[in-house]
Amino acid sequence: MSISTNVIFRVEIDKSQVTFGDVVTAVSRIGGDVMAVDVIQAGKAKTVRDITVQLNVDRYKQLEDSIQSMQGIRIIHASDSTFLAHLGGKIQVTPKAPIKNREDLSRVYTPGVARVCMAIHEDPSKAYTLTAKRNLVAVVTDGTAVLGLGDIGPEAAMPVMEGKAMLFRQLADVNAFPVCLQTKDTEEIIQIVKAISPSFGGINLEDISSPRCFEIERRLQAELDIPVFHDDQHGTSIVILAGLLNALKLVQKTVEHIHVVVCGVGAAGAACIQMLLAAGVRNVIAVDRCGALSADVHYDHPTLDRIASITNPERRTGSLSEVLKGADVFIGVSGPGVLTAEDIQQMAADPIVFAMANPEPEIDPEIAEPLVRVLATGRSDYPNQINNVLCFPGIFRGALDCRASCINEEMKLAAAKAIASIVTEDELNEHYIIPSIFNEKVVARVREAVMEAAVQSGVSKRVPRELAHAEESKVSLMSPS
Amino acid sequence: MSISTNVIFRVEIDKSQVTFGDVVTAVSRIGGDVMAVDVIQAGKAKTVRDITVQLNVDRYKQLEDSIQSMQGIRIIHASDSTFLAHLGGKIQVTPKAPIKNREDLSRVYTPGVARVCMAIHEDPSKAYTLTAKRNLVAVVTDGTAVLGLGDIGPEAAMPVMEGKAMLFRQLADVNAFPVCLQTKDTEEIIQIVKAISPSFGGINLEDISSPRCFEIERRLQAELDIPVFHDDQHGTSIVILAGLLNALKLVQKTVEHIHVVVCGVGAAGAACIQMLLAAGVRNVIAVDRCGALSADVHYDHPTLDRIASITNPERRTGSLSEVLKGADVFIGVSGPGVLTAEDIQQMAADPIVFAMANPEPEIDPEIAEPLVRVLATGRSDYPNQINNVLCFPGIFRGALDCRASCINEEMKLAAAKAIASIVTEDELNEHYIIPSIFNEKVVARVREAVMEAAVQSGVSKRVPRELAHAEESKVSLMSPS
Repeated sequence: MSISTNVIFRVEIDKSQVTFGDVVTAVSRIGGDVMAVDVIQAGKAKTVRDITVQLNVDRYKQLEDSIQSMQGIRIIHASDSTFLAHLGGKIQVTPKAPIKNREDLSRVYTPGVARVCMAIHEDPSKAYTLTAKRNLVAVVTDGTAVLGLGDIGPEAAMPVMEGKAMLFRQLADVNAFPVCLQTKDTEEIIQIVKAISPSFGGINLEDISSPRCFEIERRLQAELDIPVFHDDQHGTSIVILAGLLNALKLVQKTVEHIHVVVCGVGAAGAACIQMLLAAGVRNVIAVDRCGALSADVHYDHPTLDRIASITNPERRTGSLSEVLKGADVFIGVSGPGVLTAEDIQQMAADPIVFAMANPEPEIDPEIAEPLVRVLATGRSDYPNQINNVLCFPGIFRGALDCRASCINEEMKLAAAKAIASIVTEDELNEHYIIPSIFNEKVVARVREAVMEAAVQSGVSKRVPRELAHAEESKVSLMSPS
Repeated sequence: MSISTNVIFRVEIDKSQVTFGDVVTAVSRIGGDVMAVDVIQAGKAKTVRDITVQLNVDRYKQLEDSIQSMQGIRIIHASDSTFLAHLGGKIQVTPKAPIKNREDLSRVYTPGVARVCMAIHEDPSKAYTLTAKRNLVAVVTDGTAVLGLGDIGPEAAMPVMEGKAMLFRQLADVNAFPVCLQTKDTEEIIQIVKAISPSFGGINLEDISSPRCFEIERRLQAELDIPVFHDDQHGTSIVILAGLLNALKLVQKTVEHIHVVVCGVGAAGAACIQMLLAAGVRNVIAVDRCGALSADVHYDHPTLDRIASITNPERRTGSLSEVLKGADVFIGVSGPGVLTAEDIQQMAADPIVFAMANPEPEIDPEIAEPLVRVLATGRSDYPNQINNVLCFPGIFRGALDCRASCINEEMKLAAAKAIASIVTEDELNEHYIIPSIFNEKVVARVREAVMEAAVQSGVSKRVPRELAHAEESKVSLMSPS
C-alpha cells in the first residue's frame, strides 16, 4: 500500500564536503520530494537545516541510509508527520466547565460535592445522571492482537486505543478512555474489567486475541449490566453484513438463497458467521487452515465445534477451492494470498468477494477486480472499504443513549441495516456499496436504529426523548386530547 | 459552615388557592432570596413556573417542606446548582487535534499508527513520547474513605474523583482519569493498579481507608517505576508542614526545638508525623483515642508500633490534655471537639493550633482564635485553610516533567517549602501563613522545587530543559565559550 508521509530531517552539513544540491538529488533518487527547508543555524563551515521531505513510508529507511552514507552530512534527528502527530499522546482529559472561583470549586469539589456523593450512595442509578458514566466507554485491550501486528503488549497498543478514543469522541461525542492491561490471563482480565466498571457506561474490548476474546466477552456481558462489545468481532461483522446487503441488491440475490464461504474462523470470522445466520443466510461454510468445518468432525476448540454445528448444512468437506465452487459470496477474514483467480472463476455468476485481510488481502485486488461483480476490502486505497469506524461510534452512542444493558443480535442487525441504508438506490453501484466513514449521516442513522432495536427487544433502561416522543405522537394521533 | 446554593423549583400554582406573593414570603421566611422567575406554562387556573432561589444548603429541605405544605402548590421538580453542575459528569475525553480528513485518520489510526506501535514495541520507553502516558495520572479509589463520608462505594466516590481530575487539569495541565474500583481487597487493588499502569505516568491514590492505604501505597511504589502518591496522607502532610514552617517564623521558633502533639494516627496523621520528622522536628508525640503512643507499649497494628518507635523520645504517657502541656504546636487530624480551651491554655507561649478535622474541627474556631497565636483549619470560611489542592497538582506536574520514578521525602519536603515560600516576609501574618489555592504562583513554584529535588536525589529519568539549561548557565559562567 502506498502511504506517503512527511519526514523532517535535521541535518548538519559540512559545506566543504557536500552541497545542499547533493541532498536534494539523494531525496529525488528514492522518489521523495523536498517540501521545505529551514535554516536552524548558519555557520561558516557548517550549517544545520531542517529538511521536510514527502515520501512513501516504505522508503523512509532507504532515505535515512542514503543520507547517512554521504560524506560531510550528519543526521541530528529525524521525525515524520505520523510520529509528530503522536508526540505527547493524542487524547486529553478536560473539565466540561472551568472552575472560576471559590463558589465553582465548592460546587464541583469539597464541600458541595458531598451532597452529590450521598445522593448516588442512596440511589446508585443516579451515577448515570450525576457522573460521567452515561457517556463514558472503556476501550480495553491486553495488546495481544493489535492490528496485524500481533502480541505487541499494552504500551505499544496504546496509540491504537488513543486513536479509537479520538474517533469515539469526534464522530459520536462519546468519551472513551484506553485501558491497556499488563496481563493476558482470561480470568484476571475479566476480574479487572468488572472492578473498574462502576464508572463506565460501556466496555469496548479491543485487539484481544482469539480464542480468549470469546470467553472474556461472554463472561463480562453475563456479569455486568452495561454493554460489552468486542469490536474486532462484531464491528467487523456488522460492517461486512452492511456491505453484503447492498452487494446482494446489485446482483439481485436474497440472503435466504445465497451460498457463502467464510474463510478464517478467528474473532472476526466467528462473529461474521453468527451475524450472517442472524440476518437469514442459510448456507454458510466456514473454512480454516484445514478446510471446511463440518459437524461430522470433532475439533480441539469449542468455538470450532460450535461453528461447525451451526454451519455447512450439507456437511461438505474439502479445501477452500473445493467448497467455493458454485458459491455466491466469499468472505475472507484470514491472511494474504489464500484466494486464487481460479477459485473466483469457479464461483456462481456475479461473484461477491470480501477480501478483508489487512494490510495484504486474500487476493490482490488488481487480480480479483476483473473477475468479480463486487469487491470489498479493508483498505482505503480501493473502493468499498469495510471499516469498523462505520459501526462502533454509532452503536455505542445508541446503546448509551437508551442505557441498553447489552448490545444484542437485534441491535447489531439494526446497525448493519442502518449502515447499508445510507447508500441510496440511485447511488448504489459495484464501487459504492458502503458509505464513507466521513459520511455524516452514519452515526445518527446507526444510533437511532440501535435504540429502536434495544427498546423493542427490551434491553433498554431508558426510552430516549425522541423515541418516547414518537410513541406519544402515535398516541395523540389515535386519541387527540 | 455556610454554603449557599441556587435551587430551581418548578412548581405548578393553582391561582385560586395561592398567590405568587405567598411563595416569595415562604422563601424569605427561611432566609432565601428569589433570584429569578420563569413562566413555563401560563393557564387560566394554573401556571407552571421555575423559581430560582438562593439559600443556605442546610435550609434546602426546610424550604421544600414549607412549599409542599402550602395549599394549591405542587413541586414538579427541584434542582440546585450543585446538582446541575454535575449533570452528565464534569470531565470529558477529547482529541488533542481533530481528524479532518483521510490523511489525518491514516496518521492517528490504522494504517499509520502501526509504525508508532512498533516503535514503542521495540523501545517501551518511547511510550513517554508517543502516547498520553507522560501526562496522565490515574486517580484511584475504592470509595472506602470519601471526604468525611466514609465507605460510600465506587459509584458514589466518582464525583470527588472527577472534581480532582478537573483540578489536576485546570491548575497543572495534568490529564487525570478516575478509576473507581469495585473491590476493597488490598491484594486485588494492588494487582489491578499494576495491571492498568502501563498507560499512566503516575498513580494518585485517593480516599482509601487506613490501614489498607499504607500497604497498598508501599507495595505499588515498590513494584512500579512511576510515582505512587496517596494524597490523603502526603498531600495533607505537605500542606500542613508548609503552614507550620510559616507559623514558626511568626513565633520565632525553629523546627529543631519545638514540641509537637499530633492528634489522630490515621492516614493523614501517620504521614504528617513522618513529614515533621523529615523536616527536622525532634519532639513529636502522637496521640490516638487511648492517649499518647509510646515505644514502651506493644500495639495491635504495625503502623502504631512504627509510629511509637519514631516519636515520643521521652516516652511520656497520658491523655491528649496531659501531653499537650507545654507543647508549642497542636496538629489535629482526628475528629470534632477533642481539643478544649483549657488544653490550649496549658500549651507553651504563642500556641500554634492546626485543627484539621472536616467539616467540624477539633475545636470551634471561634473559641480557639482568642487563645492561640496562629490557627489553621481545613475550612474555607476561616483564614489559613490547609487544602490539598495546594499540593497535588504541582507535585505531580514536577514528578511527571522529570519522569521521577517515585515521590520521595526530599521531593515532599521541597514541595512544602515551595508552598511556604509563596507567602513573602512582608505578607506573612497570623491570618496569612498559607497561600490561596487560586494563587497562580503555587503550581509553578512547587513543580520547580520538586523537579530539583528529584534530580538531586537521583530519582528522575529525565532532566527537564530548564534545569539542564540552569546547569549549562552555571557552566558557561565558569568558562564562557
